[in-house]
Parts: sequence; structure tokens; C-alpha cells
Amino acid sequence: MRKSGTPFWLAISILIILMSAASINQKKSRILFFGDSITEIGVKPGGYIDQMNKMLADQKLENNYELIGSGIGGNKIYDLFLRMDDDVLAKKPNVVVIYIGVNDVWHKQSKGTGTDPDKFEKFYDAIIAKLKKENIKIVLCTPAVIGEKTDFSNQLDGDLNNYSNIIRSLAKKNNLPLIDLRKAFLDYDLQNNPENKEQGILTVDRVHLNATGNKLVAEEMMKALKGM
Amino acid sequence: MRKSGTPFWLAISILIILMSAASINQKKSRILFFGDSITEIGVKPGGYIDQMNKMLADQKLENNYELIGSGIGGNKIYDLFLRMDDDVLAKKPNVVVIYIGVNDVWHKQSKGTGTDPDKFEKFYDAIIAKLKKENIKIVLCTPAVIGEKTDFSNQLDGDLNNYSNIIRSLAKKNNLPLIDLRKAFLDYDLQNNPENKEQGILTVDRVHLNATGNKLVAEEMMKALKGM
Amino acid sequence: MRKSGTPFWLAISILIILMSAASINQKKSRILFFGDSITEIGVKPGGYIDQMNKMLADQKLENNYELIGSGIGGNKIYDLFLRMDDDVLAKKPNVVVIYIGVNDVWHKQSKGTGTDPDKFEKFYDAIIAKLKKENIKIVLCTPAVIGEKTDFSNQLDGDLNNYSNIIRSLAKKNNLPLIDLRKAFLDYDLQNNPENKEQGILTVDRVHLNATGNKLVAEEMMKALKGM
Amino acid sequence: MRKSGTPFWLAISILIILMSAASINQKKSRILFFGDSITEIGVKPGGYIDQMNKMLADQKLENNYELIGSGIGGNKIYDLFLRMDDDVLAKKPNVVVIYIGVNDVWHKQSKGTGTDPDKFEKFYDAIIAKLKKENIKIVLCTPAVIGEKTDFSNQLDGDLNNYSNIIRSLAKKNNLPLIDLRKAFLDYDLQNNPENKEQGILTVDRVHLNATGNKLVAEEMMKALKGM
Repeated sequence: MRKSGTPFWLAISILIILMSAASINQKKSRILFFGDSITEIGVKPGGYIDQMNKMLADQKLENNYELIGSGIGGNKIYDLFLRMDDDVLAKKPNVVVIYIGVNDVWHKQSKGTGTDPDKFEKFYDAIIAKLKKENIKIVLCTPAVIGEKTDFSNQLDGDLNNYSNIIRSLAKKNNLPLIDLRKAFLDYDLQNNPENKEQGILTVDRVHLNATGNKLVAEEMMKALKGM
Repeated sequence: MRKSGTPFWLAISILIILMSAASINQKKSRILFFGDSITEIGVKPGGYIDQMNKMLADQKLENNYELIGSGIGGNKIYDLFLRMDDDVLAKKPNVVVIYIGVNDVWHKQSKGTGTDPDKFEKFYDAIIAKLKKENIKIVLCTPAVIGEKTDFSNQLDGDLNNYSNIIRSLAKKNNLPLIDLRKAFLDYDLQNNPENKEQGILTVDRVHLNATGNKLVAEEMMKALKGM
Repeated sequence: MRKSGTPFWLAISILIILMSAASINQKKSRILFFGDSITEIGVKPGGYIDQMNKMLADQKLENNYELIGSGIGGNKIYDLFLRMDDDVLAKKPNVVVIYIGVNDVWHKQSKGTGTDPDKFEKFYDAIIAKLKKENIKIVLCTPAVIGEKTDFSNQLDGDLNNYSNIIRSLAKKNNLPLIDLRKAFLDYDLQNNPENKEQGILTVDRVHLNATGNKLVAEEMMKALKGM
Repeated sequence: MRKSGTPFWLAISILIILMSAASINQKKSRILFFGDSITEIGVKPGGYIDQMNKMLADQKLENNYELIGSGIGGNKIYDLFLRMDDDVLAKKPNVVVIYIGVNDVWHKQSKGTGTDPDKFEKFYDAIIAKLKKENIKIVLCTPAVIGEKTDFSNQLDGDLNNYSNIIRSLAKKNNLPLIDLRKAFLDYDLQNNPENKEQGILTVDRVHLNATGNKLVAEEMMKALKGM
């Protein structure tokens, strides 16, 4: 994360200071990633959390951060709500990154059990309130994609845009940092998906991330965490 | 609720005692009905709560019970959960009758936002736990009908039976009284719907109750409350 | 339909020729509009077909065209297919304007009985083949809107874009004129819906047309028919 | 298929006559099974059509019948309609056994693209009409199960019962033989599924048949064909 123009001696000095600080505090910042199957897979080799750990190691920051994955396949916003005490609060994180929304939209079509938009907002609000009460820092993410076509002709694009708008306004309302993965993925696909394919650029199956997709998420996450 | 064989003077004596008790305690038992549109309509003239009030008056028990309707159209189990503090706990009820489930099933088909069965159970459990903690008595109800055909060929019969089974085992597990409206409605329709009609016997539109349906619910509720 | 630059005497001459032709042939061109509730409402006062009749009268072309509305609420592509013989071929039209697609998408969400995209294309193809065999001219339309928000955050935008793409490629493949109502509505709303409202600009309820919407459809239809 | 009371010499005589007839006519009765994945799997080793071939061989009837499987996974009633010419009429069958309906119900829930009941009946009617016109004998089947619980608490039981009723009345109206697989499966499960399991008695996954399920279908089919 060193800017390219930083002189070598300055970088080294900063690094020494940071490492000292870390050894003095004996404390790593605990970042918990709270989400669905994308996060469940994220901790596996090549997953976005695994890639973040490597990025941190490359930057000699591995002693500053502990990354905790808490993703469960199929989770929707209210699944997160129901398992907060056990899976989040009990782990005493400093930061929680909420990365949810795909199933809230997808299950409408595949199971008939998606989440109403107003209920999505209410449970999201309830999660934020609980975390705030514990003085845990919060980062929000928009859900990336269900289908990578770039002309908004993926079946669920409309709804995914709607739920992303809800998350964006929750971030604004609560003055919380936002990682806009939906925008990042669309921007990337607009550059790299000239054939308007459904999958294969950032995902393996329209939803779950391939190596490039995991890398893109890892980079976006790193940018946001750097500022915290 | 006086048995037909009770002598008049005894009934009068009991009544006087009861009324005295009521005036001494200055306290009515507060029964809150927690549900969806069926309960929202239930407080209106002819609705099941309105009919219960009349039944109580007929039995000179109107000073013993205060019936509070808290039904909101479209509510599912997690809507009840989200509005517990404001709409239930704040009202200090002695008894809460939970009458929910139709929309958890119906919205799967009409909106794509029904409730997964395991989530239905989890939120129901969470509601029971919260009420128990406040020493509030709890009565469970099964959802009556979405369609009155008696050969299990109403579109959502399978799922409605499934969710009713979940509620029945919640009642058993928690040792709580159950008002099995689904069974009561099916029994009534088996007697009174020889043409296998979709609606018109106990409902106006396959779901919402007509006068007879409201009466049947009121009677079933009275039976259960009598025992509390 | 006279170009603004046409001299008056020429317009009059053409008109006289056209009217003579009409009286000689004793034949009007029969245009049948084949669709769903939007077309069913289209024949009523203020509807798009009613407005087209007025436009034709204003242009003294009422003797050249007979407009026949054949819209039934809730129709999907295969409903059109099933009623072709009775409702289209029996009426011997010269031109059939196919305006369908909203329910094929919408019913997925509201009833669970939408149309698979490949089946949509197959039945559309079968309708085109039947009309071609009878030497009936065919005009295709894309479905306009389900929600008027302009940032593609209406719930069904993705699917509606997908089905519109299918219709566009059917028009191309079969070399048929296309009235791209989806594009026309989006363009209009981008100009006239700065608040990103769901309805009220061209529709009364996100789907069915208000006076302005009916006028826009009538104008787009007139442009296309002029060229036939 | 010989009744238990038939004397041996008579059975042999009939068999000789039948075999002579077959060799004279050089013609087998062609039975085509028209359906979905259950029929697609039915031709594979152990599938119901494979089992029927073995049953016919055991009864020395293999020269009298040619069984043709025409099942495609995911097919609904209108898929059958769309592929009638190529897959049925072109093959000149003497008998067509229509075994469809599971996906018409299931896709409502899993894809949003099930079939409206009135459209199910219309396309079924259209298929029957086309086959009758070619003097092809027709046998109808009800769809067996989506879930094997016997108390009508499988999610889609209500709808499956409804579509089975539609098929039953189509058989009656058209005076056609009916193989009531839904009834046969329920009867079998009532005897053999005391634990009210979802699958494993006649199916591997609530829908697709295990060896026992394929055998039951084969036996029911044989009974019906015997009478033709």
C-alpha cells in the first residue's frame, strides 16, 4: 500500500514503526467478514480472504490484521441477524464487513423465499444497530452479480440494482464506509466482457467468484480497510 | 361457558363472586392477538375478536378480559418478530395468541418472498423465548386455509400442512396450548363443503374469513382461553 | 403523415387519389393488434388504438385502415398461440401487430407461471410461421415497462431487457419491422422522470398506460404502419 | 399377464397364435412413452421402460411390442406439444402414453415458469386432439410424487393433486385409459413409509424413481397396456 513515489528509507522507517506498534500492542485488528457462500468459499485457498492474507503478508502487515471468515452458503440478511450473537459478537471483532444480498434476491426466483425490500432494510438496520452498540466498526458491501452480462439483461439485474441502492443509502444514512462491489464488477465487465457473456470473466457460474473475481474483491476490500 | 346443568342461583352466585373479584383487583386479563390481516380484520364489527367480546358480554365476563387486536395485513413470522417490542411488550399483555403463517406460505407463490421452513421455526422460537422471558402466557394457532377444497387439492395445501406441523411441534416442545384452526376448518369444511368449493363456506376469498369463519375462530379461541 | 414540407395542393391530390383507390377497392387494410391487457384497454376511449383511430381521422385516412384490437388481460405468448385460429386467422387481417411479453416476465414473480425464455422464442417463432404462411404482414413490439425507474432498478428490468432482446433478434432474423416500445419508453422516462419514480409518467400502475403512455404507443405504432 | 386360472395348453395355444400373427404381420405394436426426465431415465438399465422390456421378454411377448422412450428432462405439457411432430407423429406409434405434469407444478416454485392449470388443460387437450386425428391410441398418467410424505405435507402436494384431478377428468371426458400413478404411489407409500420420509421409498430425490419406483411404474404400465 506504499505509494510508488515513497522513498525506500521512509517506507522502511514506517514499517519499523508499524511493527513496533504491533509488538507493543500485542493486538491485531480483528476483521470479520460476515456473509454467504461467497465468503464461505473466500477463506479457502485462492478465495478473497486467502488472497487478502497474502497481500497483507506481502506488505508485512500480517501482524496487524486478523481476518475471520464467517460465511454460510444460502444466507440472507435475516440469517445473519439470527446468528449474530454466536458468530459475530462472541468473536469480539474490531471491524465487521457485511457482504450479503445475493440470496435475498436470488431465492425469490429459485425458492420463493427471497426477502422483501423493506424487510431487507429493517434487518440490515437491526444488524448495524447491534454492532454499533458494541462499538464495532462496520463496512457495507453491495452484492456483486448474478450474471455478468453488461447490458442489464441478466434476469435479476433490476432487483440486484434495487437492493444495492438500499445498501448504498444505508451506508449514507449511517455514515459508514461502502465497498461497492456491484459497481466494481460492472465496471470490470464493461472493460473485459465484450461478448456480453453470462459468466466466466469474474465468476464461474454467474455468482461464485473465479480467481480474478476473488482478486477483485480482495483488492476492493484492501482499499477500504486501509482507510480504517 | 356455564354448563347447561348449572342451577340458576349457583350461576348468579359465581357471577357475583367473579364480578367482585374483578372490581377488587381492578384488573382485567389482557389478551393480545398477534397476527396478520385476518386479525387486523378481526377487530372490526363481525370480526372474530369483536365476536369474542360479544360472547364475553353474553357470559358477563367482559370485566375479566381485555382483548387487544394486533394484526397487520401481509405480516409473516419475522414481521411479528420485528415489531414485538413496540406492539406486544409495550402493551404488557398477560396472554399473547400467535396466529400467523398464511403469508409465510402464500408469499412464496404471490411475491417470491415466503419464509423458509427452518427460518419460520427459528423466528417463531425467538418470539416464544422473548415472551417467556417476560412471563407472558402464550397460545399458538395453526393457519386455517388458503382455499377450502377438502381433498387437499388447494394449491398451497402441502406447504400449509407442513407449516402447521411445525407449529404443532413447537407447541408440544414448549408445552404450550395450541388452537388447531387448520384442523377445525378442515373438519368444518368436510361437513359443510360437499361440492369441494374453493371459498364461500368459511372464507370470502379462500383466505379471509366470512361471518361463519369468524364465528368458528372466535369459538375455538374461547375454548382455549377458558382453560387459561 | 404528410411531411411538413409537402405543398398543400400535392397533399390534397394524394389524398384524392388515396380516397379514390379506397372507394374503388372498397377495401381497408385490416390491422390487428394482438396482445394482452394493454391492448384490451387500448380499444377503449383514450386507449392507444382509439387514439390511432383519431389520428387516422385527422389525416383523412380512416377509410384506408381498419384497426382491430385483440387483447386479453393476462395473456402470454402461448395464449396468443392457442387463440390464433379463432382470434386472428378467422378475421383475415392484412397486418398483425404482436405486442406481448409483459406477463411472460411478470407471472414468474406474481404467479410462478411465467414463460421460459427458450419457450418464449419457440412460441413466438411458431406464431410468425403461421402468419407468414397466410401471407399476413407482421410487426413486432418489445414490451414497454414494468416500473418506470430509469436506472434499471425496477425489479423485473433484467428479464424484461432479456425478452426484449429476444424479440429484437426475432425481428432481425425474420426481417420484420420492430416497434421498440421498451426503448421508446425508457427514452421518454429519461427525459421526463427526473425523480426516478416507479409510475405516473407513462403508466398508472407501473404497467398499464395512462393517457401519455397510450399516446406514445399510438405515435410509435403510426410511424411503423406508415412504412407498410 | 396370463390369468392364474388359464390352463397351460390354452396359454401355449394363444401364444403360438400371437407369435404367428406377429411373424405374419411382421408388425409390433409401437408404444411410445412421452414425458420428462423420469421417462428419459426410464429407458436406461433398470428404468421403467427397460423393466417393461424384461417383463415382456419373460412373457415371450417381446415380438409383440416395441417400446419407444421419448422423455426429455425438464419437459412440461407445452414442451410435449411443441415437439409432437418430430418426436411422436414421425415415429408412427400405435399407442402414446403421456406421462407429464411434475415440472408444470415444480417449475412454479423452482423457476417461476410452471404452467397455469387452465393452460395445462388446453395444451393437454391439443395433444390429445392431434393424436386422435392420427388414430393413435392414447393412455394418460397422473404425475406420481414430488416428495413421498403421506400426510399431504410435501410442499407441492396441493398443486400436484390439482393437476392430477385435471388429468383424471381429461381421461374421463375423452374416454381414455388412465394410469393413476399418483394414487399408486400414495397407496404404496402409505403401506411402506411409516416414518413419513420425504424420499427413499420409491424415489431417490423426492421425484426421480429408484429401482422400486421404476418397478411400480412398469407394473402399472403393463396392466394398462394389457387391456389395449
